[in-house]
Amino acid sequence: MHDGSDVPAMRWWGWGDAAQRLTLPTHALSFLRDTVGLADPPHPPVALAAVRIEPSALGEHTLGALRAIVGDECVHDGHAERVIHAAGKGYEDLVRLRAGEPQGAPDVVVLPGDHAQVRAVLALCGQDSLAVVPFGGGTSVVGGLAPLRGDHGGVVALDMKRMGEVLELDGESRTVIVQAGARAPALERYLAARGLTLGHFPQSFEYVSLGGCAATRSAGQASGGYGAIERMVLGLRFAAPRGDIDLPAVPASAAGPALRQLLVGSEGTLGVISELALRVRPAPRERSYEGVFFEDFAAGVDGLRALAQQQAAPEVARLSDEQETRMSLALAGPGGVKGRLGRAYLGLRGYRGGGCLAILGFEGAPAELAGRRKRALSLMRQGGGLAVGSTPGQAWLKARFSAPYLRDELLTHGVMVETLETATQWSNVRCLHREVGRAINDALDGCGTPGLVMCHVSHLYETGASLYFTFLAAQRVDDEIGQWRTVKEAASRAISDGGGTITHHHAVGRDHARWMEREVGSTGLSALRALKSELDPAGIMNPGKLLASVTQG
Amino acid sequence: MHDGSDVPAMRWWGWGDAAQRLTLPTHALSFLRDTVGLADPPHPPVALAAVRIEPSALGEHTLGALRAIVGDECVHDGHAERVIHAAGKGYEDLVRLRAGEPQGAPDVVVLPGDHAQVRAVLALCGQDSLAVVPFGGGTSVVGGLAPLRGDHGGVVALDMKRMGEVLELDGESRTVIVQAGARAPALERYLAARGLTLGHFPQSFEYVSLGGCAATRSAGQASGGYGAIERMVLGLRFAAPRGDIDLPAVPASAAGPALRQLLVGSEGTLGVISELALRVRPAPRERSYEGVFFEDFAAGVDGLRALAQQQAAPEVARLSDEQETRMSLALAGPGGVKGRLGRAYLGLRGYRGGGCLAILGFEGAPAELAGRRKRALSLMRQGGGLAVGSTPGQAWLKARFSAPYLRDELLTHGVMVETLETATQWSNVRCLHREVGRAINDALDGCGTPGLVMCHVSHLYETGASLYFTFLAAQRVDDEIGQWRTVKEAASRAISDGGGTITHHHAVGRDHARWMEREVGSTGLSALRALKSELDPAGIMNPGKLLASVTQG
Repeated sequence: MHDGSDVPAMRWWGWGDAAQRLTLPTHALSFLRDTVGLADPPHPPVALAAVRIEPSALGEHTLGALRAIVGDECVHDGHAERVIHAAGKGYEDLVRLRAGEPQGAPDVVVLPGDHAQVRAVLALCGQDSLAVVPFGGGTSVVGGLAPLRGDHGGVVALDMKRMGEVLELDGESRTVIVQAGARAPALERYLAARGLTLGHFPQSFEYVSLGGCAATRSAGQASGGYGAIERMVLGLRFAAPRGDIDLPAVPASAAGPALRQLLVGSEGTLGVISELALRVRPAPRERSYEGVFFEDFAAGVDGLRALAQQQAAPEVARLSDEQETRMSLALAGPGGVKGRLGRAYLGLRGYRGGGCLAILGFEGAPAELAGRRKRALSLMRQGGGLAVGSTPGQAWLKARFSAPYLRDELLTHGVMVETLETATQWSNVRCLHREVGRAINDALDGCGTPGLVMCHVSHLYETGASLYFTFLAAQRVDDEIGQWRTVKEAASRAISDGGGTITHHHAVGRDHARWMEREVGSTGLSALRALKSELDPAGIMNPGKLLASVTQG
Repeated sequence: MHDGSDVPAMRWWGWGDAAQRLTLPTHALSFLRDTVGLADPPHPPVALAAVRIEPSALGEHTLGALRAIVGDECVHDGHAERVIHAAGKGYEDLVRLRAGEPQGAPDVVVLPGDHAQVRAVLALCGQDSLAVVPFGGGTSVVGGLAPLRGDHGGVVALDMKRMGEVLELDGESRTVIVQAGARAPALERYLAARGLTLGHFPQSFEYVSLGGCAATRSAGQASGGYGAIERMVLGLRFAAPRGDIDLPAVPASAAGPALRQLLVGSEGTLGVISELALRVRPAPRERSYEGVFFEDFAAGVDGLRALAQQQAAPEVARLSDEQETRMSLALAGPGGVKGRLGRAYLGLRGYRGGGCLAILGFEGAPAELAGRRKRALSLMRQGGGLAVGSTPGQAWLKARFSAPYLRDELLTHGVMVETLETATQWSNVRCLHREVGRAINDALDGCGTPGLVMCHVSHLYETGASLYFTFLAAQRVDDEIGQWRTVKEAASRAISDGGGTITHHHAVGRDHARWMEREVGSTGLSALRALKSELDPAGIMNPGKLLASVTQG
């Protein structure tokens, strides 16, 4: 059995291995000083020992019972482990952790080794009225891991990292069965050795567990080729407090409502995904990532829409709006290839708005890739796009997982950085882009901290696409969270009013729970809550998230 | 408002317009006489007036209240309308209807004109304790329309045919919003006039309503290109007794469990789909349908798997096993092009088993179709397939909707004909094919009516495919339904034991309801029933189907 020791550690106050650190180059710092302002001196996080959490509420009896289930070495109630499991990696999480004031911590961290141990832990928690927060890679950015206890006497973080085994590979059916704690990079290594890939690469790839991806309806950067996780999940083993649900891998079924698609996206509120059957594909033998410039956002959106609607979407497709394009060139700096390229191009074309950069990434077997690439680039040209070669594509590939590292640096410099996303029909993409951007800008202005707001389109579908916003502003000292909530509220309202879904791939967690009624209506929400009452009658599963009745303060 | 008058009428005892009739050619009748035997003299259906149903249980008060909601002309309690709505088109349905002994009939047929009228009818039925059976095209083959009243005082058939309007077309987003009673051919005509198609062509295409397709997770013959209905549904308007659920069209969402995919497949047991947002595509400008012969079933399965796994699946792909191939050649007759072709081919290759015929159908724009076709046929050749030109493809296209007409003729001649289907992972396709085929053959033998059992693979996925069985045998006189139940039971058990889903695209209805616990487990079934209790607290929606506790007699 896997002991979880090969799972990469993540720094407790931020992203990535404590041994690695990505620093912002001087020109980027100057740019930010000039635009949003930097804190002087910087704000480093407090020391781990200084993080304030309440003592564990659990007595020896409960701890002993947990140890009897999973083994002594798999029950942790020390300070460090509790702090590490006290939050995910959302803005609020990080601001609180860095200040040493998380929103509570789990009373104990328990590492089950298999489905039976998950089930036994749930039974004990039901009996002792303890809330259970399933913990995969710990990367939630929507408060999905907040150790909220609801009406219960304590919180157990159920860390899935020991459950990382590949249980079965059916090459003929292109199906792999894994334990839910398996991390995406480990699974990709296992598959790569066999010429296969899952193809799921969210920005959090380096840390995510597959169970976490399924529980949160994650979409990877290559969703244009591989689909979001919901398309990959063929079967599930699920431990709900009420009992097990075993749904074997089937390619499709008309046997009633899609129960698989109910458990996918359940965010730990109905039970725990313990095993997953996932579709795999041959690993691509060639990759081609390149840039295409458009005169403006509307032209780029039309270009991407043509790709999606003419079945020509590459594995990765993303279009930065004018602001994101400008920002990305500025951060690349005058010496960066991207900077040089961008400026040369913009100069050449005389684009006042700065133009919009799209990245198209093709992956596959050489022969068919060449055909698809040619067809896609031809569609881009027809839409006024100018292919600018592989430099921007390579730069994007290199940095595809780096944004969360940069966020830590920005927080140190007193810069709020947050991302949020939605999806909508093509006919509404431009309008929603405008409305949400305006809402964020206005809210930042209202906080007295004018900011930089940018967006890209990604995750193309025939009928619509996702819009992914990033914004930066100086943190409002001593009210970082109030400031963030104001902006988040304004953006969420603009999304919901504007006909977008409240989340395309970040999930609901704590932060979007109050928008669920608008998303699915009161009857829809009652239906989902009835499901929860049936599967989790004591309400121990991840309270305060997704289906909770919440009024955010 | 649409009055439903352009919806094609269907003969009450069988399939299709009463004015049309497909007869079996002499050589086909001889073949059947020699193999399974024919009834002599034939058994025509009884006259409509001779069909025995109980008088309507509804009093004038209820009828008046229904008329007040939908209008006098939209409430029918006459003999003919009640008989027409007494069943779907499954084997049991037809045997009973032809004998003039349906399993009851709805007490009244009500035709709502819009969502508000649907809601008002549900409210009235809740108040008066009347069961509601939503009725779209009336084509269920699994007893989904059986007028079972459960614990209620009567049954209302809610015929959706007046709700056939297209409400909105968003060409930019390739999305159409229709009322749920819209028939597939009418929607295709509307779309064709605008250069578009939905691409949903089940065998029942000529009669199905889109709401019915969504409610039953229908898959069309061209699912390889367009996907099953579940992939087309972007949004829904749903009237449950508890309240409305409005889910607007979004391309994708991570906002919790997929509620859209819960209502898709709900088979009228949770409420009524009143409107649908569906993805549409450009209508294909070219079609190419052709035949490929394989030496045996295993080689053909490998060939189809290669198509699916190398992203080369055509819109339509189906592979008949040796028995179905032989049967199809026999029925085509010595003079038929298919017969000549098949015999010439089989002679040439010396296939003892008779070989297996696959039909590949490509649809699209000429240039890209040519490329896809070339690639697919090359994969077929690599797998030992021999392309035999367009004759078999054209023959299939011509007959693609004719099987239900032939069934009526076979029943007249005393031949039981039934189809059933499943889906499984590729690694299990051959084994499940063998086991289910054997189970059906053994059961027919056990009934003293040895039969013809044949199968085709269709609906290709990267991870598996559907298996579609057809069997024929002489009807056991005076126990047609007992005979059918014995065989159906054996086949269902073989499917369930053998790792297949109990249905890939026929849905659950009454006939598969007792297999649901094996399909989703007892906890899964409890979860779905909890959902039903919430949305339909009085249990008025389509009792006895899908989630019912049933013991089939």
